[in-house]
Amino acid sequence: MANNDKLTALDLGRQDRPDPEIAAYFAKCEEKLGFVPNVFRAYAFDNTKLKAFMAMADDLMLGESGLSKAEREMIAVAVSALNHCHYCLTSHGAALRQRSQSPEFGELIAQNYRAADLGRRQKAMLDFAAKLTEAPDKIEEADRVALRRAGFSDRDIWDIAAVASFFNMSNRMAAAADMKPNREYHFMARERLDAGSKAVVRAPALRSTRVAAPMAAPASSRRRSRRGE
Amino acid sequence: MANNDKLTALDLGRQDRPDPEIAAYFAKCEEKLGFVPNVFRAYAFDNTKLKAFMAMADDLMLGESGLSKAEREMIAVAVSALNHCHYCLTSHGAALRQRSQSPEFGELIAQNYRAADLGRRQKAMLDFAAKLTEAPDKIEEADRVALRRAGFSDRDIWDIAAVASFFNMSNRMAAAADMKPNREYHFMARERLDAGSKAVVRAPALRSTRVAAPMAAPASSRRRSRRGE
Amino acid sequence: MANNDKLTALDLGRQDRPDPEIAAYFAKCEEKLGFVPNVFRAYAFDNTKLKAFMAMADDLMLGESGLSKAEREMIAVAVSALNHCHYCLTSHGAALRQRSQSPEFGELIAQNYRAADLGRRQKAMLDFAAKLTEAPDKIEEADRVALRRAGFSDRDIWDIAAVASFFNMSNRMAAAADMKPNREYHFMARERLDAGSKAVVRAPALRSTRVAAPMAAPASSRRRSRRGE
Amino acid sequence: MANNDKLTALDLGRQDRPDPEIAAYFAKCEEKLGFVPNVFRAYAFDNTKLKAFMAMADDLMLGESGLSKAEREMIAVAVSALNHCHYCLTSHGAALRQRSQSPEFGELIAQNYRAADLGRRQKAMLDFAAKLTEAPDKIEEADRVALRRAGFSDRDIWDIAAVASFFNMSNRMAAAADMKPNREYHFMARERLDAGSKAVVRAPALRSTRVAAPMAAPASSRRRSRRGE
Amino acid sequence: MANNDKLTALDLGRQDRPDPEIAAYFAKCEEKLGFVPNVFRAYAFDNTKLKAFMAMADDLMLGESGLSKAEREMIAVAVSALNHCHYCLTSHGAALRQRSQSPEFGELIAQNYRAADLGRRQKAMLDFAAKLTEAPDKIEEADRVALRRAGFSDRDIWDIAAVASFFNMSNRMAAAADMKPNREYHFMARERLDAGSKAVVRAPALRSTRVAAPMAAPASSRRRSRRGE
Amino acid sequence: MANNDKLTALDLGRQDRPDPEIAAYFAKCEEKLGFVPNVFRAYAFDNTKLKAFMAMADDLMLGESGLSKAEREMIAVAVSALNHCHYCLTSHGAALRQRSQSPEFGELIAQNYRAADLGRRQKAMLDFAAKLTEAPDKIEEADRVALRRAGFSDRDIWDIAAVASFFNMSNRMAAAADMKPNREYHFMARERLDAGSKAVVRAPALRSTRVAAPMAAPASSRRRSRRGE
Repeated sequence: MANNDKLTALDLGRQDRPDPEIAAYFAKCEEKLGFVPNVFRAYAFDNTKLKAFMAMADDLMLGESGLSKAEREMIAVAVSALNHCHYCLTSHGAALRQRSQSPEFGELIAQNYRAADLGRRQKAMLDFAAKLTEAPDKIEEADRVALRRAGFSDRDIWDIAAVASFFNMSNRMAAAADMKPNREYHFMARERLDAGSKAVVRAPALRSTRVAAPMAAPASSRRRSRRGE
Repeated sequence: MANNDKLTALDLGRQDRPDPEIAAYFAKCEEKLGFVPNVFRAYAFDNTKLKAFMAMADDLMLGESGLSKAEREMIAVAVSALNHCHYCLTSHGAALRQRSQSPEFGELIAQNYRAADLGRRQKAMLDFAAKLTEAPDKIEEADRVALRRAGFSDRDIWDIAAVASFFNMSNRMAAAADMKPNREYHFMARERLDAGSKAVVRAPALRSTRVAAPMAAPASSRRRSRRGE
Repeated sequence: MANNDKLTALDLGRQDRPDPEIAAYFAKCEEKLGFVPNVFRAYAFDNTKLKAFMAMADDLMLGESGLSKAEREMIAVAVSALNHCHYCLTSHGAALRQRSQSPEFGELIAQNYRAADLGRRQKAMLDFAAKLTEAPDKIEEADRVALRRAGFSDRDIWDIAAVASFFNMSNRMAAAADMKPNREYHFMARERLDAGSKAVVRAPALRSTRVAAPMAAPASSRRRSRRGE
Repeated sequence: MANNDKLTALDLGRQDRPDPEIAAYFAKCEEKLGFVPNVFRAYAFDNTKLKAFMAMADDLMLGESGLSKAEREMIAVAVSALNHCHYCLTSHGAALRQRSQSPEFGELIAQNYRAADLGRRQKAMLDFAAKLTEAPDKIEEADRVALRRAGFSDRDIWDIAAVASFFNMSNRMAAAADMKPNREYHFMARERLDAGSKAVVRAPALRSTRVAAPMAAPASSRRRSRRGE
Repeated sequence: MANNDKLTALDLGRQDRPDPEIAAYFAKCEEKLGFVPNVFRAYAFDNTKLKAFMAMADDLMLGESGLSKAEREMIAVAVSALNHCHYCLTSHGAALRQRSQSPEFGELIAQNYRAADLGRRQKAMLDFAAKLTEAPDKIEEADRVALRRAGFSDRDIWDIAAVASFFNMSNRMAAAADMKPNREYHFMARERLDAGSKAVVRAPALRSTRVAAPMAAPASSRRRSRRGE
Repeated sequence: MANNDKLTALDLGRQDRPDPEIAAYFAKCEEKLGFVPNVFRAYAFDNTKLKAFMAMADDLMLGESGLSKAEREMIAVAVSALNHCHYCLTSHGAALRQRSQSPEFGELIAQNYRAADLGRRQKAMLDFAAKLTEAPDKIEEADRVALRRAGFSDRDIWDIAAVASFFNMSNRMAAAADMKPNREYHFMARERLDAGSKAVVRAPALRSTRVAAPMAAPASSRRRSRRGE
């Protein structure tokens, strides 16, 4: 786990002293993903900074929430598209391809979520995330009301905001440091996962329905996804 | 070659009357690509419009030029990224992955060309295309001078401008009509084409060199690429 | 028809070899306008490029359409105003002054179409063209619906989009090449064409009605204008 | 001098009580221009407001300054073009056509001053006015230094700023009130004023020289133009 | 009243000749404020310019109007916040803290009026002022209608526009000249003026009500505030 | 420490279960500040989220760094000004007034850092933070080079980026939730801390020097500030 690669355009010195919590986390990454994401390795020059970043990222993307994990990746990717973030589009693009079980859907959100035929819930979710990204000073009560009308609770609104805001931070860290994503991401979840009949592709409304099924959290039941789910 | 799919959000009626020139062109597409690009099928309600579009696209992307074909795809993709164009990022993203012989490079330009470690020539080329896209009214002689200093002739500058301008048109047509790309593009040129040693990926300067080789036209010799090259 | 003037800031070499189709087209321009528009002379270094450009421009601005020719010039001019394009405001400004039979109306659209007291149809048309120009990535189904509600068919929407998109291309070519318009345009269609009573000017609603009459295509009948009309 | 026309979209009531100073000013307008500019008639519902506006406009555009009157009109028109102001482009466009003795030059600045082949002095002047219009919060000492290097004194810088700032006010008043310009402006100073040889038009550098001559104040001598000059 | 301080980044020479009207005005400033605002001292190199500026500022901010003086300061501060104007945020921020009798409210508007829990009238007023500041070319009849629906007369709309436009001028003069505010402003009206129970602060709706009371002009009665009120 | 106030526009339910680490942290806030910042109370519905946020904020603003604590507050405030964030301008504005020992300096940065007469180091620092805020996708190596030339190490660049990025997150959380700052902030560090002679105020260069002294970290010595310093 040497840190002698060029992960960023910054010379941040050597990794911080060994730390069992971080070592365990990295081992888990290796096991699950096959590699340690470069963003963690970039932060590894300082254990305090790395742990704070890991804790926040972990809670937001994997913790309990009224948003499904795929929905959170949709926000991550849509925000990163607006900010044109190479690192996050690569890494979270891969995650979205995987979680949505559709390589095309992942790419589509990375290109322009408005070209996706999203249902009302996810459209409202990404419209809020986009406005929060582009004009945070213009958010008004009407924007929160639109989310509530689309079925989100106030806790969900917090989570939408938190994920969108977090990527407005991460996108900027990646840009400032010129962070390079692990090459593996490029090749993850690219294979067609469905029967692939042309009919499905040709009817965008169907695709959206198809994708939405596994992604949408049951908003009515308000059962929250749990860690590790 | 039925046109009964939903290619766009517009109901443009049936295809225009059969036309041998178009039929031959479509046959060539099928042969080379395996399918007729949806943009051509979308225009097929009117032969005059389709032919004008085909003629211009063909000349710009495949005709003689001091820019290599890969460089022209770089412009197409970089402009489409700024305009967040789903159709063109999908179709020309595939073309760039192919022409650059690097799936990662194609994705990178589709995300943010400024994160690519481009050489001076291609950086200047895309900087001009980006400014022309975002602030055409602010182009000044200094912008043309920057291209000349990077080794481009005035004919090359015309071509850079023409490709960038063309995609500022096409991106808008695709957005206005909500044009859907052929599904095949998503899966084209995704495989790793190189030895794939991590070392290459880790050194962005090398990748840029590696990619530049097949892409860069020999600027000094000024030999222009020819049709069909 | 020597090409030794400075039409652009680019040195594009000599005109391409003689071509009968182009010669005929240029002769027709001389006959109708009194001169060959500089944009055609600028493209004349390459017959292929010139013909593709002429074919597209001709079809869009003069071909059959549910939009009147004056309406197409309105789009051309409104888009060129947003892009601050000297060449196109000069040449298509003249065309709009002529087609609308009102020098003031032509100028007004070249300044800011929102200051014109347009009827619902033309207001919706230019609102769409403006959004497509300024934020193509934010076009949504609601934007197409607004056009349909204003009486446009889907074929008309294609044409509105096509003209607006074309000028987003041409404006950029003119900016990139610093294209100079023929001086004659400045002096075309400047004379007062109406009785000129102050009453007419003072009541903008009337002027708009007056202008709208010759311009508006009969949307209900859906009869399309024909070439040469 | 009845005020029963529709000068703006606002119903501001009747004109204020007769006032000899205003009456004299309006009489002078009639004499010099042939009409009272609508902006003054729009303000005439309140003598205090009208006098304050007249005093400021008069001093800025006609008072003593190191800037020629034509240069001040250039700033007025360039700023109004950025703000797409129908009223000011019409009225000050006419003034610039007149003062520069070139209808084409007036139009050109109303379209995009960057397309004019301006000398260093006037280019620097309009670059400052444009930045002050578009991003006043980003003005820095370097911007003032650029003006000094182009030959402007600090008093001149004040005047450039004052004219640009004034039109950022007037443009907004005209937009807010939907102010309609006098029809006469459209037809003022449209005739060719020079010999009109094509050669002159074809060489933009020459035109710029030609125009610059009567416009440029003798910067070196620092003699200031006087009222009424 | 020597003018040898560095009020701006410009060297504008010495003050103009003594003038009794200005002397009286400055004396009144000293008496009421304790100092002469630097903006007046900056203009004092030219009596004509200073008087025109004083007359306009005075009428707009202190003259008769359907808007209360505090409301006019709200517009001044909200516009200056969008333009990030150091001078005007300092001086009119102080004025708003004073007129609203709430230091917190003054600061809040200087930060982002959308975070204030404004009533419908003042929200509409500042929304109009903000749009007029950011996109004057996009003002339409619908924007005026929104003000009328919020209870404003057409004369009030003129005043809203006039104050917002004036600060779009002043903000730019201050930026261009790098104008420095009097230090005294920083320390004016900072003290808590109310009982200061936490309960009040915690309930923004209450604060807004509390503040609105002294600020809102009685829109129904249409009695206009008078000079000196 | 009841959480029954309206801290945000969201109904996030009751506080999470008691947690000794958080209780200790809140007690320390009460001791040092006199209150618990509302942002922490807003996050207190979920201990995991609160701890992650506290850990990151604490490390960034108080941890070891080549940037002084006042410099980090400058970045916080300058970014929050660009994003017009009511909460952060209020809370970190107070912190900057305190750390810089100048209420005027704190306000100035909250208004527009470009109006402050900053030295080269801090000007470069805030220019980078501003670009990272407004156009993260346009950050290039040249931007990092500018920081190195101004004396920053690569570790410092990381910290500048990290603070600027963090506030791009926090500003958006505050906007999305309509977070209300503690009232106490408004009244903190408002008193004049210096002799207050007018001469000092009049000479901005001096003020900048005066302020810079306690704020600037000794860049040459590269000694890093430590926690608790």
